[in-house]
Amino acid sequence: MSITKLDQIYEGKAKKVFATSDPSFYIVEYKDDATAFNGLKHGTITGKGIINNKMSNLMFQLLEKNGVKTHYVEQLNDRETVVRAVKIVPLEIIIRNTAAGSFSKRYGVEEGRELLRPTLEFSLKDDALNDPLINDSHIIALGVATEQELDAIRTMAYRVNDVLREFFAGIGVKLVDFKIEAGRLPDGTIILADEISPDTCRFWDAKTNEKLDKDRFRRDMGGVEEAYQEMFRRITGQKGNV
Amino acid sequence: MSITKLDQIYEGKAKKVFATSDPSFYIVEYKDDATAFNGLKHGTITGKGIINNKMSNLMFQLLEKNGVKTHYVEQLNDRETVVRAVKIVPLEIIIRNTAAGSFSKRYGVEEGRELLRPTLEFSLKDDALNDPLINDSHIIALGVATEQELDAIRTMAYRVNDVLREFFAGIGVKLVDFKIEAGRLPDGTIILADEISPDTCRFWDAKTNEKLDKDRFRRDMGGVEEAYQEMFRRITGQKGNV
Repeated sequence: MSITKLDQIYEGKAKKVFATSDPSFYIVEYKDDATAFNGLKHGTITGKGIINNKMSNLMFQLLEKNGVKTHYVEQLNDRETVVRAVKIVPLEIIIRNTAAGSFSKRYGVEEGRELLRPTLEFSLKDDALNDPLINDSHIIALGVATEQELDAIRTMAYRVNDVLREFFAGIGVKLVDFKIEAGRLPDGTIILADEISPDTCRFWDAKTNEKLDKDRFRRDMGGVEEAYQEMFRRITGQKGNV
Repeated sequence: MSITKLDQIYEGKAKKVFATSDPSFYIVEYKDDATAFNGLKHGTITGKGIINNKMSNLMFQLLEKNGVKTHYVEQLNDRETVVRAVKIVPLEIIIRNTAAGSFSKRYGVEEGRELLRPTLEFSLKDDALNDPLINDSHIIALGVATEQELDAIRTMAYRVNDVLREFFAGIGVKLVDFKIEAGRLPDGTIILADEISPDTCRFWDAKTNEKLDKDRFRRDMGGVEEAYQEMFRRITGQKGNV
């Protein structure tokens, strides 16, 4: 693909996004920066950007094969990928299969309890408000998204869960929960955006329940880089120390 | 009705509930006690129990006439009413027409902003957890209520809003938002329970936006008893100092 990287248009906690010479595409650059608790905790996870870039791209390709439209276009190098230019719907879209994290705390449910069925929740992406939980009727009443968009997002999110859950089960990993984001194409179509990585998913070893995700960083458990590498190794069958 | 009041089976912040000689019925007794912020603030609103009892019963009768099944049976005296014995679904059911209170704070929306359409939200009734916001998929996944029950509750709540909004508009009052509760009859039918009063609704004067509800107590605005009396006067056309 011959496009030129232009100005940075956004810098998030874990990624930078750049405009390109083609207005239909952005270039995403994955960083090693890690934050938690709405930015209160900062750190670096060496090599994370490379793993998250490559892993997300593999997951996006798997999802595309299974009928989910994503923003993935082409990986440029270890840390950079071309994606379709979308406007992000300002919602964190969270699917949970097993109680953990903020869900366990909010509802007083012990971590690890299997839910009767997967749940879908939305948080309004707004750092100043601490990304509050928000329901469908609030989203529509505040004009954040339309009912049709929420239907599309819901269908997509559950499909992503079905595909990923099966994939991770095959490599000995339990998909506890994950966060995705949705983007609007210029014609209004909703597609999967953001990333799929140990930053945005909870992965537990299927046998030992050992955490293989960012909770090791959030909770100062040590072995953070090793967990990211282990996930990458299982996905690719190759050495994770890329 | 000849039933005998038996043991108290529950004491809430604003009401006591008693068993009766007929297992199909309870007697509710309305207190003057007022609390706010999940019990952190305590006080008394003189005469509140009488107003809330009578006002709730009038509202329940209005709703019954308009096709909403409620727990109301018969008013016994100023503070006591016979109601159908139900098991309360442990959810606060909140409809909002206008942004106010916790909604405004949570989503950074100024109080008084009209919503594009009414919203419905649920909070899990759990003082220890501070009644957290909860969505449909969480409720179902945790076994708090079934999908069918949520459908029945949703239909009921919006119907209550339509009926009450029109009624209050007719007496110069804007129904900003309100909280109701639902109960299960032994056969599983969902009916309206709890109360409908200035404790559980936000009422603003339609012309001046003057608050005529418990926010005067929550926010130390003074004129608390007078607001309850004014609401009662408007509803009944009689003097509120009952």
